[in-house]
Amino acid sequence: MENIGKKQKIVIIGGVAAGPKIAAKLLRSGTDFDIDLYTEEDMISYSACGLPYYVEGLIEDSNRLIVRTPQQFEEKGARIHLNKRCTKILPDEHKIAVSDTKTGIIQQVEYDKLAIATGARPILPPIQNFHLKNIFTIRKVADGINIRNKIREESTKKAVIIGGGYIGVEMLEAFYKNNLEITLIEKDDHILSIFDPEISDMIAQNIVNMSEGKVKILTSEAVMAFEGNEKVERVVTSKGNIIETDIVLIAAGVTPNTEIAAAAGIELGVSNAIRVNNRMQTSVKDIYAAGDCTENFHLVSKNYCWIPLGSTANKEGRCAAINMSGQYDAFPGVLGSAVTRYNGLTISLTGLSETDAKKFGFDTISSIMTKKDKAGYMPGAEDITIKLVVDKRLKKILGAQAFGGGDADKRVNTVASAIMAEQTLDNFLHTDITYAPPFSTAVDPLISAAQAINNKLYV
Amino acid sequence: MENIGKKQKIVIIGGVAAGPKIAAKLLRSGTDFDIDLYTEEDMISYSACGLPYYVEGLIEDSNRLIVRTPQQFEEKGARIHLNKRCTKILPDEHKIAVSDTKTGIIQQVEYDKLAIATGARPILPPIQNFHLKNIFTIRKVADGINIRNKIREESTKKAVIIGGGYIGVEMLEAFYKNNLEITLIEKDDHILSIFDPEISDMIAQNIVNMSEGKVKILTSEAVMAFEGNEKVERVVTSKGNIIETDIVLIAAGVTPNTEIAAAAGIELGVSNAIRVNNRMQTSVKDIYAAGDCTENFHLVSKNYCWIPLGSTANKEGRCAAINMSGQYDAFPGVLGSAVTRYNGLTISLTGLSETDAKKFGFDTISSIMTKKDKAGYMPGAEDITIKLVVDKRLKKILGAQAFGGGDADKRVNTVASAIMAEQTLDNFLHTDITYAPPFSTAVDPLISAAQAINNKLYV
Repeated sequence: MENIGKKQKIVIIGGVAAGPKIAAKLLRSGTDFDIDLYTEEDMISYSACGLPYYVEGLIEDSNRLIVRTPQQFEEKGARIHLNKRCTKILPDEHKIAVSDTKTGIIQQVEYDKLAIATGARPILPPIQNFHLKNIFTIRKVADGINIRNKIREESTKKAVIIGGGYIGVEMLEAFYKNNLEITLIEKDDHILSIFDPEISDMIAQNIVNMSEGKVKILTSEAVMAFEGNEKVERVVTSKGNIIETDIVLIAAGVTPNTEIAAAAGIELGVSNAIRVNNRMQTSVKDIYAAGDCTENFHLVSKNYCWIPLGSTANKEGRCAAINMSGQYDAFPGVLGSAVTRYNGLTISLTGLSETDAKKFGFDTISSIMTKKDKAGYMPGAEDITIKLVVDKRLKKILGAQAFGGGDADKRVNTVASAIMAEQTLDNFLHTDITYAPPFSTAVDPLISAAQAINNKLYV
Repeated sequence: MENIGKKQKIVIIGGVAAGPKIAAKLLRSGTDFDIDLYTEEDMISYSACGLPYYVEGLIEDSNRLIVRTPQQFEEKGARIHLNKRCTKILPDEHKIAVSDTKTGIIQQVEYDKLAIATGARPILPPIQNFHLKNIFTIRKVADGINIRNKIREESTKKAVIIGGGYIGVEMLEAFYKNNLEITLIEKDDHILSIFDPEISDMIAQNIVNMSEGKVKILTSEAVMAFEGNEKVERVVTSKGNIIETDIVLIAAGVTPNTEIAAAAGIELGVSNAIRVNNRMQTSVKDIYAAGDCTENFHLVSKNYCWIPLGSTANKEGRCAAINMSGQYDAFPGVLGSAVTRYNGLTISLTGLSETDAKKFGFDTISSIMTKKDKAGYMPGAEDITIKLVVDKRLKKILGAQAFGGGDADKRVNTVASAIMAEQTLDNFLHTDITYAPPFSTAVDPLISAAQAINNKLYV
């Protein structure tokens, strides 16, 4: 079948983040590839992470979320196939089967190299009466449009959000800013349970305090049933609470779209995400994977994990493209760094919480520091709280959690950079961080947090 | 003279940043020291870095700049001696001579351990007619008060700033916000000459563009003379320009206050700053030094330098206090990290510019990246420009320069953290940085800058 001089045929499945990134990077590689991208959706290359801000109303036109249009790809020589669902991968034949979502017509497509970037989808918890109207998940642009239309109806006054993870918190802001009364229901003991309990407690308290009585957070409570006549009108919880609502948003986690990969014999890993090596190669020859559908290696725990994030999808897509193009790139893994926001409160994390560090067997030492984010005499100085977690024996930095003033996340990035370099606390606490009164305190909260652990250890 | 059971006598000279830091840390050390702090000023422990914002009017009361009062120290057991100038150090006798600035009476004071934290003072360039009124430098609170009073007079319309370093730029903002027409005169080819020329050019252009014609920047031009009748009315430059002005601010650099240290035989280093080891010990037994009066070791160039900054003063003060108390701490050195601001434009740097890196013998590779600081569709997204400089052979990161959106400095801190750990570009470009649309782009500008160098090197 191979043909000297023939262009290499690249097929990409998935059109949100990693898929278009692979196509874009290959188009810039200098080699003339034959690139076909298939997606079951009717659009590609959009910022799913921007949807909460579209719902909130900060972005007026949903088209602003589109990073690149099919036309932009076509002009550069890639073919974009909308409304085409990949139903099967045939590794031995180097083919995939694609079904037209409108006509149902199935075609087979050959590839020399295949990239799977099928992403993830929301988990639907086992709740009765899912068929009622105004129960939403949020993943696609159409979801955002539907939710925004609904909350802008004058009759929409009350909302229930199921799940207190990053998306739950972002949608809480969107709903709060649209004057809804919201009950957020989390089945775990804490919202944002990737944080240490005392930190998520402080965050939850802050969220409630800054919401003028319009936000209620229920924890250790699951939703058992929806009730209503056609439309959802009430949710019933495991503690017997009955909460009236006009809209329900389910943000109870996501699961990777890896069924077709598994059916093709491609090895899966944690949470059924696709296992890849550091060149984004799957267990099957000539098949790569990138983005939310792939497993990650955690650089602190040194364990495999599944932390699907848009920033990682882009990095993995770049890495996959470089390797697919015959060059070399290695993606070492993730720190789980993330940031979210509620109503001006920045909430951010990198590495392991102390709870997770202990689970992975580390002997930890930590500090919690609350200080102003800029010189206390500057207008707009806000509190910032940082928890720093360190390996007590090796002194390596294991993680940081922060919430508060506007750029709490950037303090976390300074730690992420240190963890990436396997930096020790002894060296980190002397890091020469920029200082001027509008930007930090003479001893930045982050340095203070590091000094506090140093004090415990030595002085 | 030693007396078992007698408290150790600590004497500190200098009361702005490092001096009070040493006193505060010693008071928390758990050992009961006899602490005396001498300053020639009539106040201690104030934020000199905050003075431009006091002049601007962002801070109404100059007392807000005071970190700790003499009373707060006295309550904890330290004695604060205002208006007492140290005139001589007698290392053999373990004594200093102190002169009362009001009465002229001289006393001798014994110490077991001495800390020199005498800071720095503005350089006065050789300009004719310095005696004229309304010519200012800015270092002390009284300077800030005098300048603010002058610019608030209705007759003050025009200003000249001599020197385009960090303080010159901060005072430019203060004057601009007070509706003055300002000419900034810099004798070097570029303002902010610690940045690479193309970066400082872009910054200068930005400053002029955002100032509605009220700011002029003259470079490669020195001020030769002041002219006027009692008050300064004009400055005359080396190019023969005559500029009318109502006020002159001189921000032409600083020099360390180390004359008494030198006279006592204490070794000086670069720029006549006091040489210290990493425990902040000078060349003379039982004498420590910290803050703006000390030399620094530059962790990238591996050369001694003198970069006096408030953040470093605080770290060195802490280090000196720990070692003076008999514990151990080592301050490894500085990266020269700094941030300043003009009218919403954040300007920041860490490590070496490419120009300086080449001077120190590095073979460099670099990238300049301009991207939005947050998702382009988010309200308030602003451009941020980052220059990253890398050692071409070892791939070590050497420096970063950034200007633009609000938290450009925090991107620089992420690099500072990497440099501190001697991180390589290959690893750094995969750093898992937090992402959400209000905080960054899916591929943060910093990661893009790193990828751009990686592209040049490999793909």
